[in-house]
Amino acid sequence: MDFEQKALDLHEEHKGKIEIISKVKTTSMADLSLAYSPGVAQPCLKIKENKEDVYKYTSKGNLVAVISDGSAVLGLGNIGPLAGLPVMEGKAILFKNFAGVDAFPICLNTQDADEIVNICKALSPTFGGINLEDISAPRCFYIEQKLKQELDIPVFHDDQHGTSVVVLAALTNSVKLINKKFADLKVVVNGPGAAGTSIIKILHNAGIQNIIACDEFGILYKERDNLDSHKKELCDITVNMQGTLADAIVKADVFIGVSAPNVLTTDMIKTMQDNAIVFAMANPNPEIAYDIAKQAGVRIMGTGRSDYPNQINNVLVFPGLFKGALAARATTINEEMKIAAALAIASLVSADELNDEYVIPNALDKRVADTVAKYVQEAAVKTGVCKDGI
Amino acid sequence: MDFEQKALDLHEEHKGKIEIISKVKTTSMADLSLAYSPGVAQPCLKIKENKEDVYKYTSKGNLVAVISDGSAVLGLGNIGPLAGLPVMEGKAILFKNFAGVDAFPICLNTQDADEIVNICKALSPTFGGINLEDISAPRCFYIEQKLKQELDIPVFHDDQHGTSVVVLAALTNSVKLINKKFADLKVVVNGPGAAGTSIIKILHNAGIQNIIACDEFGILYKERDNLDSHKKELCDITVNMQGTLADAIVKADVFIGVSAPNVLTTDMIKTMQDNAIVFAMANPNPEIAYDIAKQAGVRIMGTGRSDYPNQINNVLVFPGLFKGALAARATTINEEMKIAAALAIASLVSADELNDEYVIPNALDKRVADTVAKYVQEAAVKTGVCKDGI
Repeated sequence: MDFEQKALDLHEEHKGKIEIISKVKTTSMADLSLAYSPGVAQPCLKIKENKEDVYKYTSKGNLVAVISDGSAVLGLGNIGPLAGLPVMEGKAILFKNFAGVDAFPICLNTQDADEIVNICKALSPTFGGINLEDISAPRCFYIEQKLKQELDIPVFHDDQHGTSVVVLAALTNSVKLINKKFADLKVVVNGPGAAGTSIIKILHNAGIQNIIACDEFGILYKERDNLDSHKKELCDITVNMQGTLADAIVKADVFIGVSAPNVLTTDMIKTMQDNAIVFAMANPNPEIAYDIAKQAGVRIMGTGRSDYPNQINNVLVFPGLFKGALAARATTINEEMKIAAALAIASLVSADELNDEYVIPNALDKRVADTVAKYVQEAAVKTGVCKDGI
Repeated sequence: MDFEQKALDLHEEHKGKIEIISKVKTTSMADLSLAYSPGVAQPCLKIKENKEDVYKYTSKGNLVAVISDGSAVLGLGNIGPLAGLPVMEGKAILFKNFAGVDAFPICLNTQDADEIVNICKALSPTFGGINLEDISAPRCFYIEQKLKQELDIPVFHDDQHGTSVVVLAALTNSVKLINKKFADLKVVVNGPGAAGTSIIKILHNAGIQNIIACDEFGILYKERDNLDSHKKELCDITVNMQGTLADAIVKADVFIGVSAPNVLTTDMIKTMQDNAIVFAMANPNPEIAYDIAKQAGVRIMGTGRSDYPNQINNVLVFPGLFKGALAARATTINEEMKIAAALAIASLVSADELNDEYVIPNALDKRVADTVAKYVQEAAVKTGVCKDGI
């Protein structure tokens, strides 16, 4: 049977991928009277007196909403909320299976940014955190920013920051192999959408000054016509020059693609520095094929694919990151917590193991979620964003 | 240890009562590639082509949202969304434990009726049905009515109809014991809030003409000042007269209370017909205490309590009712489906078993949910409200 049919069969066999079960028994009248009426009135009253008790008596503290509007699902585009459900269910089970975090998939029947913000705010009492997913740029920036301002639970758009964290992890380890200082790298980021924008920001915050951003029309610079506001903002932290991707990439140490298949050519690679690092993450077909890139002289190559070395997969990030943020009772996920998550991931590749084909742990590495959670929790405490002075 | 502490401990022990688990494995890269990227694109594409496939490939078809705004939680009143969470979680686990239906608790941080309607509409892609819960009257009527008009999934306000269905079931069996025709009963309903309103409507739809509705100011009649619109509407199907509850109850066969403790007196009961039936469901303290009512001559007495005979508990209704509606892929829950649910419940007390202290199955009777589901599914098919001509 072919792969596509297998995937359909798996989804049909169980009618979806999530199930909601009870943590308590309701088999006797005594059970029922404790878990439901009249006993349930007791935790209700405690929470009414002290809102923080909601974390003690309900599932809120370990519960993440995976919220999408179906506007940018995988590489499939704006397929709508119903068709987006299988992805959100998939995300939810990864939260549970990788980090023990309960996650519930929600696909909204609206693509109005303010309405999405209002709905998330209205839903927030139920959840300990909100993972925004597959919401198209530039609306995703506005929605996340608004929610971060207005809610006191962690809000995280995974397409942006999950990707940027795992890229930072891979780059941190890659640099150890090429005898260069991280801060001295020249980096070209192609595709300043949700992921690309967050990648540029996290690399900047991690100390890299020499970043050039390109979209399908070439390099971003302040005076360019018709720049979206998120692209304009990037011009403050990137090298502003006019030119094409080919111009940008000359003497670059690193190419990071979150764009489209086959936009990176062998000729371009030949103009890069020795020991070039290429993370070509367009899915399923990267900006340049793995073998072609290696033949052209790329030293360290990463992709989004599991069938090549160095899979740059954000499943390394979001389960542990939320686990740590929830454990800390963090009110937000700040840049320090994201950088901590990247360092946690990077730390799991030991100096002995580190090589061009292994700069980042395997997506299934069972150590990752707990290590990320620990680092993130520590960063939350250190930056003072925890409730209750935890 | 006292009961209240036991209830708190149970809720604290597990930090809430619900857990979201995966129905599929994600332990190998092969698993991951089928359940998540890239395999998950296949069910997405199928659903994009044909929306109905969402019932084939996702959890939607067995998933109910339990939605509240925390405005009328148990007998605790308007305690807000956070404090309402333990009740909604409790409801969710009863759906699962009693009928195998996945249910997810949502407490909204708004009490604006139109906003609640819009949020439920936006959430609807994710769910196979919506159970509204603990939303105060009269907003609950407006919200349910609007959602029923605008959504093609079942919407059911349990405080209204769960209660009315189980009352109809109990009354159906009670009448068999007193040698009267159901349609000839004179019924007084005290407390025309969410539950009382639905009880009056279902009894009317089941054939009873002689119903008197009372609130704390006495009998409802069209010309009375300051009637809420839902009370005005009730005047079309009730006996309009002026007077008090004491006036209403003279020669009544049945008193149904969903009101307040101790509003029914021994003197009132003495003016009722022989073989009086009293369902006194104020919680936890009924309209008249069980023993006092029996001493005053009540033949069949039901309450909301598990420590007396004839517990009139809507856990007999909602799990099976949604199971049946979901199995039928019903687009609504109509009056016929509710009456079918009542008859299903009533049918489980055999003629041999039926007596004054046993007119309704025990809340834990394992036969109930499946029997209710079967009757409801049949009624949905019969009334033509199923998708796909099922």
